[in-house]
Amino acid sequence: MDTHERYFDRDLGELKKRLIHMAAVAEAMIDRAIRELTVRDETMAGSIPQHEDELNRLQIEIDEMVQTLIATHQPVAVDLRFLLAATRINSELERIGDLVINITEAAEVLIRQPEIKPLIDIPQMAELARRMVRESLHAFVKSDALMAQTVIATDDQVDALKDQVIRELMTYMRTDPGTIERALALILISRHLERIADHATNIAQDVIYVVQGRDVRHPLTRRDGEGG
Amino acid sequence: MDTHERYFDRDLGELKKRLIHMAAVAEAMIDRAIRELTVRDETMAGSIPQHEDELNRLQIEIDEMVQTLIATHQPVAVDLRFLLAATRINSELERIGDLVINITEAAEVLIRQPEIKPLIDIPQMAELARRMVRESLHAFVKSDALMAQTVIATDDQVDALKDQVIRELMTYMRTDPGTIERALALILISRHLERIADHATNIAQDVIYVVQGRDVRHPLTRRDGEGG
Repeated sequence: MDTHERYFDRDLGELKKRLIHMAAVAEAMIDRAIRELTVRDETMAGSIPQHEDELNRLQIEIDEMVQTLIATHQPVAVDLRFLLAATRINSELERIGDLVINITEAAEVLIRQPEIKPLIDIPQMAELARRMVRESLHAFVKSDALMAQTVIATDDQVDALKDQVIRELMTYMRTDPGTIERALALILISRHLERIADHATNIAQDVIYVVQGRDVRHPLTRRDGEGG
Repeated sequence: MDTHERYFDRDLGELKKRLIHMAAVAEAMIDRAIRELTVRDETMAGSIPQHEDELNRLQIEIDEMVQTLIATHQPVAVDLRFLLAATRINSELERIGDLVINITEAAEVLIRQPEIKPLIDIPQMAELARRMVRESLHAFVKSDALMAQTVIATDDQVDALKDQVIRELMTYMRTDPGTIERALALILISRHLERIADHATNIAQDVIYVVQGRDVRHPLTRRDGEGG
């Protein structure tokens, strides 16, 4: 390995570290937002705005690193695909932060009112989504297509849980119109979690594209309009 | 201008043409989906699956063009920023297609049942979102930061309309629980339209970043958790 390659590997290692850190921040945000909702304690979400600022800062840093890496090392083939995917994945992670902010906004409305019911499916959705975020990023930095496939498979579980949440809450709304506002807030939270899982799925599909050079972002079987 | 530069400009021109075409396809999809809903005619949405396939095909083509352009021309500075933005914008446009599919799914449920009320705000949201998609892409290919600013400003109007839609529909649901399912479908459609506008806003922010080298994706004033 020549000096140039060594520099490239070193810079790439740094980039990977930042991306993994960014995913960890996003994960912590999801965890906090859902804990705020389940333990009904607003202070749980206290650190979320700082986390969001950190994500935004990381997004800018990572895009600049990608630019510098391409301009100085002029990579081709799989290395170039990796860097182009990094800039897209970077955006996905930043969006996850935005969605968590939306969740905390809905959560703040909810915890000021009595609970409709103890939450079971929503925390489970959050746990799956959180794991998908972590695993999609680990799959990316390790170029692990198998792990990426696991993430993609988990998305169906999240979608099924979301359908269940909506069905159940519609029953509450019909039976007692006094629950409408709260039920709607919970439905929106479940949609935000579903979207977080979608972002992780997008990341995982990009991983397979980078590793295999094969575009699985649009498998022929996916004609259900879900995802994305 | 040497031959190399001429080739670069020619390839860049082709890339821009594809991106504009992709935006036009996304626009047509939005238009069709909302017409299905307003004229209550399922056949209106008939061409949407083909449009969606076209978006997916274009996404792959454009990513490949970006890779080839970077690998063969080794651009730096603003040219490199432009190409990196192109791969992100490409993803945004493809997501808009996914959202339109979600809209048609909700629309199909709605048009089989009586109307709650004539739709006014939702078609207006759709018209704004459609215009934002078109203008954000034109701003990108023309490097027009001013047009990009207009797109970003329009996003507030879309958000205000969505809040109005939700408020109004919650009143319907409270007054007549028989409207709950339909009202919920309309609320979800308004969220999908809001997200389409968010994607256009992301594109516009990327345009300003490319043109001015200044990152407006996270202005200091934006602490409301909206957008994205």
